[in-house]
Amino acid sequence: MLTRKQYAEMRDRTLQFLQKAGIVLTPEEQEAVEVADFGLENLEVEGLQLITYVNTDRYCAKELVLFPRQTCPEHLHPDVNGEEGKQETFRCRYGTVYLYVEGPASPEIQSVIPEGKEACYTVRHEFVLKPGEQYTIPPHTKHWFQASEEGTIVSEFSSTNRDEYDIFTDPAIKRIPVIGE
Amino acid sequence: MLTRKQYAEMRDRTLQFLQKAGIVLTPEEQEAVEVADFGLENLEVEGLQLITYVNTDRYCAKELVLFPRQTCPEHLHPDVNGEEGKQETFRCRYGTVYLYVEGPASPEIQSVIPEGKEACYTVRHEFVLKPGEQYTIPPHTKHWFQASEEGTIVSEFSSTNRDEYDIFTDPAIKRIPVIGE
Ligand SMILES: [Zn+2]
Ligand SMILES: [Zn+2]
Repeated sequence: MLTRKQYAEMRDRTLQFLQKAGIVLTPEEQEAVEVADFGLENLEVEGLQLITYVNTDRYCAKELVLFPRQTCPEHLHPDVNGEEGKQETFRCRYGTVYLYVEGPASPEIQSVIPEGKEACYTVRHEFVLKPGEQYTIPPHTKHWFQASEEGTIVSEFSSTNRDEYDIFTDPAIKRIPVIGE
Repeated sequence: MLTRKQYAEMRDRTLQFLQKAGIVLTPEEQEAVEVADFGLENLEVEGLQLITYVNTDRYCAKELVLFPRQTCPEHLHPDVNGEEGKQETFRCRYGTVYLYVEGPASPEIQSVIPEGKEACYTVRHEFVLKPGEQYTIPPHTKHWFQASEEGTIVSEFSSTNRDEYDIFTDPAIKRIPVIGE
């Protein structure tokens, strides 16, 4: 469980990071920064910060912030109620992001797999995205990503977001964050 | 018709403007900047510059660049082949954009209507968007927008883009740009 203090610290770091990249949020968006630890209580290693700009029944846009070597755990987006699973385009805005999807394993990868979690990061087909570079992940495709040593900001453009249906490889993961006192 | 020289000049101005705002494009995207004069041959007054990041059968994301007082003419997005018309979210990234949609006319508007074109700008319900502020335009809704004196950059998140079906109020408009020698 994230404490309120942890949440506030990570939110402030997120806002500073966005500011450095020239990305402006409204005061309401600043209050609504989401900090996801996936219930793993190891936020600096497995976690991410995000701002959802818009999520309609047709499309969604977000900004994702990952601090140095922070990792978004492996997951996929299934069909939901007969609707095709979420399709996502990741566009790097700042820093470098290492992205992994299904496909032939890259001979060597640039990410550091979180300690003891090898079994939860099964896809190893690597894309390295620098500012301006992007990649579109088809529905039902396992993927995970990690920031380089400098951290990263990634714009996510996608079909409608239904995070609550995401399927994570790590059985310990709970997607909906819980903030305590 | 835009001359190649006009096109190259506007593309270079666009790239400089994006750079000032910290928005990075790949070399391929830099080559593919679109300059739209809508066939009106008055680009500095009625026109816009844009980069399409992604356009799938589910969603679309673009960056729109407007120079000082440049105006995107009034139009709407109709249903296409039984599919609901395009829904668009405009998020201001830089400068100020004055956006007009259907609704009660604002008592005073901040835009300057292009000379002699009053009849082609019929909706006058004004929103003023500064960096971080956004507005979502429902399908089938007439809208137009103009940059402030400093110009503007606007991120557009939307359902699938089918520009060729847009309906413009000005009967003189041709959407598909023609570049000459
Ligand atoms: Zn995903
Ligand atoms: Zn439009």
